[in-house]
Amino acid sequence: MKFKLKTIIEDNTTTYGRVFDYFIQVLILISLLSFAIETLPNISNNLRGILSVIEILCVVIFSLEYLLRLIVADKPLSYVFSFYGIVDLLAIIPFYLRFALDLRMLRAFRVFRVFRALKLIRYSRALNRFHIAFKIIKEELVLFFITTAILLFLTASGIYYFENKAQPELFSSVFHSFWWSIVTLTTVGYGDVYPITMGGKIFTFFVLIIGVGVVTVPAGLVASALSKAREIQNKELKEQGLVDAEE
Amino acid sequence: MKFKLKTIIEDNTTTYGRVFDYFIQVLILISLLSFAIETLPNISNNLRGILSVIEILCVVIFSLEYLLRLIVADKPLSYVFSFYGIVDLLAIIPFYLRFALDLRMLRAFRVFRVFRALKLIRYSRALNRFHIAFKIIKEELVLFFITTAILLFLTASGIYYFENKAQPELFSSVFHSFWWSIVTLTTVGYGDVYPITMGGKIFTFFVLIIGVGVVTVPAGLVASALSKAREIQNKELKEQGLVDAEE
Amino acid sequence: MKFKLKTIIEDNTTTYGRVFDYFIQVLILISLLSFAIETLPNISNNLRGILSVIEILCVVIFSLEYLLRLIVADKPLSYVFSFYGIVDLLAIIPFYLRFALDLRMLRAFRVFRVFRALKLIRYSRALNRFHIAFKIIKEELVLFFITTAILLFLTASGIYYFENKAQPELFSSVFHSFWWSIVTLTTVGYGDVYPITMGGKIFTFFVLIIGVGVVTVPAGLVASALSKAREIQNKELKEQGLVDAEE
Amino acid sequence: MKFKLKTIIEDNTTTYGRVFDYFIQVLILISLLSFAIETLPNISNNLRGILSVIEILCVVIFSLEYLLRLIVADKPLSYVFSFYGIVDLLAIIPFYLRFALDLRMLRAFRVFRVFRALKLIRYSRALNRFHIAFKIIKEELVLFFITTAILLFLTASGIYYFENKAQPELFSSVFHSFWWSIVTLTTVGYGDVYPITMGGKIFTFFVLIIGVGVVTVPAGLVASALSKAREIQNKELKEQGLVDAEE
Repeated sequence: MKFKLKTIIEDNTTTYGRVFDYFIQVLILISLLSFAIETLPNISNNLRGILSVIEILCVVIFSLEYLLRLIVADKPLSYVFSFYGIVDLLAIIPFYLRFALDLRMLRAFRVFRVFRALKLIRYSRALNRFHIAFKIIKEELVLFFITTAILLFLTASGIYYFENKAQPELFSSVFHSFWWSIVTLTTVGYGDVYPITMGGKIFTFFVLIIGVGVVTVPAGLVASALSKAREIQNKELKEQGLVDAEE
Repeated sequence: MKFKLKTIIEDNTTTYGRVFDYFIQVLILISLLSFAIETLPNISNNLRGILSVIEILCVVIFSLEYLLRLIVADKPLSYVFSFYGIVDLLAIIPFYLRFALDLRMLRAFRVFRVFRALKLIRYSRALNRFHIAFKIIKEELVLFFITTAILLFLTASGIYYFENKAQPELFSSVFHSFWWSIVTLTTVGYGDVYPITMGGKIFTFFVLIIGVGVVTVPAGLVASALSKAREIQNKELKEQGLVDAEE
Repeated sequence: MKFKLKTIIEDNTTTYGRVFDYFIQVLILISLLSFAIETLPNISNNLRGILSVIEILCVVIFSLEYLLRLIVADKPLSYVFSFYGIVDLLAIIPFYLRFALDLRMLRAFRVFRVFRALKLIRYSRALNRFHIAFKIIKEELVLFFITTAILLFLTASGIYYFENKAQPELFSSVFHSFWWSIVTLTTVGYGDVYPITMGGKIFTFFVLIIGVGVVTVPAGLVASALSKAREIQNKELKEQGLVDAEE
Repeated sequence: MKFKLKTIIEDNTTTYGRVFDYFIQVLILISLLSFAIETLPNISNNLRGILSVIEILCVVIFSLEYLLRLIVADKPLSYVFSFYGIVDLLAIIPFYLRFALDLRMLRAFRVFRVFRALKLIRYSRALNRFHIAFKIIKEELVLFFITTAILLFLTASGIYYFENKAQPELFSSVFHSFWWSIVTLTTVGYGDVYPITMGGKIFTFFVLIIGVGVVTVPAGLVASALSKAREIQNKELKEQGLVDAEE
């Protein structure tokens, strides 16, 4: 019995397993949509009632799913502390906290319902490639993260030095200048904050020539690591005789 | 007779075939240009008359082309439901619907004439490489599409939570916040909508550090898959003795 | 005599050749700088005089250089119509046209002096790699150029349809909408023109998800083709015994 | 004794070495944070006092570290003129210059304390990969830097020609137009300066189609060179028997 449940819940290669999987995923989409609709201004009390019912239904089913996964797991504790275990819990816990906590804090907790979106990603060969790819470029990503952090600090300090006097409102401290740094280095450039002094513009000129490249390299690293990961995976599968050489 | 027509229409390696191809492509460009000119404000009735004549001429020729392709096709039905078959039909159908439908809806249908632009891409070895490349990275692209969708939802919900009170007009619901999410994550940053609260800015800071990379990875994947596709194609052509090893 | 001149002018591996090369390049930088300074508002007549003298000196030397290159060339005509031959001529011709043509047209012609900047790129092994790289991905670049053109047309037509009524000034025709298309698809997003209707925003949403990738792929293609070109070049040099295997 | 100190200071594979390393890095973070906090407007005299004490403590320890590194170095002079030697000196020198120089210049020198951030990057295998990668693509990066410089000059001159009359404030000279060029080519697009004439817009259209690619290629080059560098490093380590073949 437990074994049969296990194949349905954990194995999405069987027919029942796939049906269970799709059912949960459709439910996630419905619950996300209902969460978004609830934020619309001027919705009728009628609609609000329907959304509440949907919400309760979703939470009940997600709670059942969580319990079932807990029951069929070989090591229940390792499921609880796994990435998906935490996500599955985060998807239902805000609902129950509504009753335990003061109602005025309700809103803040309900926002955590958005984590249900993370339930959408599960088992797949492509996802496995991502694990391999990230393992390959872990060191580079950490280095780029540190470099980006240093770059953000240096540029925020620099622009603060140049623009603080001309625009004391927008560049009131190094911390406030970080907003300019991130918006500029990622090339978003909203236009709410930009240098107006000659020194600040020349500084930005050099920051952009050097800095923009730094921020976009990680995406290229991920792309080339994914190609590498595919090769490794294909080789492994080939050795197991699962795919032919020419895929 | 049918065979000769077939070589002219479907085969662009013969002289007649190439002439036919270029003729149709020039006609597409003319019809697109005339479509664009028609939208200019304050054009004279004279010019409007000329544009109408060009439009009728183009539709007549495109209709003939559609019929000819239907006649010479080995399997007419598979042509009708192929990508190019649908595009070819979409290129002429808005014209005929003008007579069948109420004239006030005319405008909406004429806009579909822009699909004629899609007629410009046809047979080429490079295009074949794209088919190979997309087959290689199909799984990754789907995964990135899902990740992007989840990211858009999470960021839209997050920014709604932070900015709703400060800017109720721009962030009036999660749906309205999607506009901010897409404009920010693709780094377009028009500047019509951006966070003004401290919490919203800090949230955007982390969204940009993590999110911008995610959205630009697919382009890198396509680029590296195209290199791989070229190698596969060269290998195939080499085996057929069509190109030398060193290309 | 002619041979000795030839080694100085065309061969930058000899000492004299390198000195000649650097001299011309420094002169180009000076002439570009003087061109830029001339555009500054409120410059004194004194400075304007000095800039005129520098300009005349530069043109005289560039003219001499052009004549010398013409003399030492094995096939003078193929030099004249080569890329650098045309650039070298464009660098001096605006000066002479000042005398031949009406003085009021003078300004327009002087702007062509900026082409002197192109004189800065000459002979290098890395440049050769670019030629190889572009030959490898020529077909893909052409296809992407066509795709980008079609994408620009489709998006311009689409946004015109959605925004024309709401913002008749900014989206007055398909041609005017092209400005929005290019600024959006390249993610520049100045913020002078953006959709305000719900339909236009949803349309932009999908355009950004699909379109941004298309526009950034060519850069990735160039980068990976350059890696490939380096391998090809290293292999050739290795076969000639010029570099060792491990470079 | 000196040898033991050497293993602590220069070798971060021993326990004491790692503790020393982490201690210095935490101190750098504290000193950077205190630098940033100092720039906040309206901070109390109390807090300012604490920050001063932290600053003096940090400088004392960094000075000791500098002296120790100087003592244990095999070639003290080559440490002094190495990248990290200069960074280590720049991290402490602004403090001492406060006493030597006029107090009004104090502020300008204190800003150089931000260079302490550079102290955060030190020895790592990933960093070594970057050295290899940059050696591989040095020539291409130089060529792209020159191309970008030329592109910036050509586009600044072009937009000056088109927009100078319509917006004499923003495009008052070629130098002022450089600001537009860098903000546009890196796709930041703040929105403070953009073309408004038809000619300027058409010029920008073509600049964006050609130019945006040029500016983003270097990031792709770095990414693919890093993959290559990893292969070279793995091969070297494999030859030394340090890693297995399948990493």
